[in-house]
Amino acid sequence: MSIRIGIYGYGNLGRGVESAIKQNPDMELVAVFTRRNPAEVKINTATALVCHTDDAKNMTDKIDVMILCGGSATDLPTQTPLIASMFNCIDSFDTHAKIPEHFSNVDATAKKSGKVAIISCGWDPGMFSLNRLYASAILPDGEDYTFWGKGVSQGHSDAIRRIEGVLDARQYTIPVPKALDAVRSGSAPSLTTRQKHTRECFVVAEEGADKARIEKEIVTMPNYFADYDTTVHFISKDELDRDHKNLPHGGFVIRSGSTGENGKNKHIIEYSLKLDSNPEFTSSVLVCYARAAYKMNAEGQSGCKTVFDVAPSYLTTKSGEEIRKAML
Amino acid sequence: MSIRIGIYGYGNLGRGVESAIKQNPDMELVAVFTRRNPAEVKINTATALVCHTDDAKNMTDKIDVMILCGGSATDLPTQTPLIASMFNCIDSFDTHAKIPEHFSNVDATAKKSGKVAIISCGWDPGMFSLNRLYASAILPDGEDYTFWGKGVSQGHSDAIRRIEGVLDARQYTIPVPKALDAVRSGSAPSLTTRQKHTRECFVVAEEGADKARIEKEIVTMPNYFADYDTTVHFISKDELDRDHKNLPHGGFVIRSGSTGENGKNKHIIEYSLKLDSNPEFTSSVLVCYARAAYKMNAEGQSGCKTVFDVAPSYLTTKSGEEIRKAML
Repeated sequence: MSIRIGIYGYGNLGRGVESAIKQNPDMELVAVFTRRNPAEVKINTATALVCHTDDAKNMTDKIDVMILCGGSATDLPTQTPLIASMFNCIDSFDTHAKIPEHFSNVDATAKKSGKVAIISCGWDPGMFSLNRLYASAILPDGEDYTFWGKGVSQGHSDAIRRIEGVLDARQYTIPVPKALDAVRSGSAPSLTTRQKHTRECFVVAEEGADKARIEKEIVTMPNYFADYDTTVHFISKDELDRDHKNLPHGGFVIRSGSTGENGKNKHIIEYSLKLDSNPEFTSSVLVCYARAAYKMNAEGQSGCKTVFDVAPSYLTTKSGEEIRKAML
Repeated sequence: MSIRIGIYGYGNLGRGVESAIKQNPDMELVAVFTRRNPAEVKINTATALVCHTDDAKNMTDKIDVMILCGGSATDLPTQTPLIASMFNCIDSFDTHAKIPEHFSNVDATAKKSGKVAIISCGWDPGMFSLNRLYASAILPDGEDYTFWGKGVSQGHSDAIRRIEGVLDARQYTIPVPKALDAVRSGSAPSLTTRQKHTRECFVVAEEGADKARIEKEIVTMPNYFADYDTTVHFISKDELDRDHKNLPHGGFVIRSGSTGENGKNKHIIEYSLKLDSNPEFTSSVLVCYARAAYKMNAEGQSGCKTVFDVAPSYLTTKSGEEIRKAML
């Protein structure tokens, strides 16, 4: 019998989840839930329903795990606790500073309902978090470094779009090769924000807009750009659509640590991702952790979990015997 | 209260474990167990005892986790099941083909004793296995690649030493850069054994030995060298001791996979290790999984486990709240 999945929210991430489910033969998409008029939402799975989010409460016996695909700013803080009161569920909540609060809200409703809710699943938070934990547990005497990119930061792209005279924009975060090399050398350098990443912006300006002003507003923008070396390129809308329509991303988690007498032996643990599509990769992580939520709940577990609480064997379709034989 | 550790077997790995325990303030080395005369074994921890292996059975109330540091060929197949009948324990059993049998033997005694035994911990099997599992669960449509090195293979070095006329030898396994690049490009190449790794040998020959014969015996040796491009360098004993006394190792686990419509988006997940000391890094992995064995048993779990069965949160000294705040 398949694991019956619901998708709650149907944007980039929801479509990525729909696509990822097709790569996992033990899963079946039952329904997509939307706040729009269901009759106007077209999906890519002929056998699945499109329902209004209000109808989710009537489908608790038809869905094993709900995958929440809303945004962290306004959707998930209320949606995940609500859905966890009815379903096993999983989200990609990524506002790092608010994770403790979100965890506590979701834990309360999931414990009451007896369901498993896994929050903050994706690659950061998610796989990068896992690698920070594993590496620091193995090498307690050491330093962690996380680099992001090269990839599109949607938050930074949005910030540029809000500037007067800007029609559209795409911002790439780029790790500084010299900084990566220094970390990999084992020298455990102290690196400033500016030394770790540069930012490159492709901007479509309105006709006749003051480009010098736009550029200045970008590079001096506090929090987003002021602490970085930022390059701004003005391009046409056609160029933006042709060369910058994808959402690639990725990055590096590196731990540099030492062992032995006086720490004489150095070790470097490096995890990296190079992703053509940030939302599709995040979706793929969500889908395999949805399997974990289902299995853990079937064993009687409940409450809020994160990737730290999930034994890797829950992620796969294979049995313990098979993975010990084939992968260990 | 500290986690009280015993070390069972005191070679390179046992000394590495002793050293790693000093980096983990929640642990305390209680005793080293040796088959030699304890009076003749000097250790580096003033507060710990040196005992004979026969005395382990009298110390079940003094040790929380026994870390087995014997060899996979002849020690661990009998030692781990025996020790698991008395203690929580952990080993680095690395004979891949015999893991299912070893698991089953250890599981039987650990279930009976109510202890947790984690087998095959280190980096391969161990961290590399974990990364194969995570990456294949996230990207089911893809290919796995494992490369080893650059590093010293002790098995291959030993094989050379058994050749007549050889006094000493050191063999390095080296991944082929072109093969690594092909995998990272996302082209999912099919690679032969010869295309993935080369082997480089540093050999000290007896005076007057027939070097041409030795070289030929090395490069044609079945299983070990015949399927590889192998280079042989004859050097002096002094050079070997000066330039090749360490045991560096490492490698790469890379998954190349695709998502989306017709698999149009490619993703690369790469995990790599660059280790100055293979035994000290393996020891560090053993020590943090010893903490997991202790915590899991304290929760009432028992039986044989592998890295696949251990939720990452068990590896750290920090609370769930702390890791969610600092690492997620």
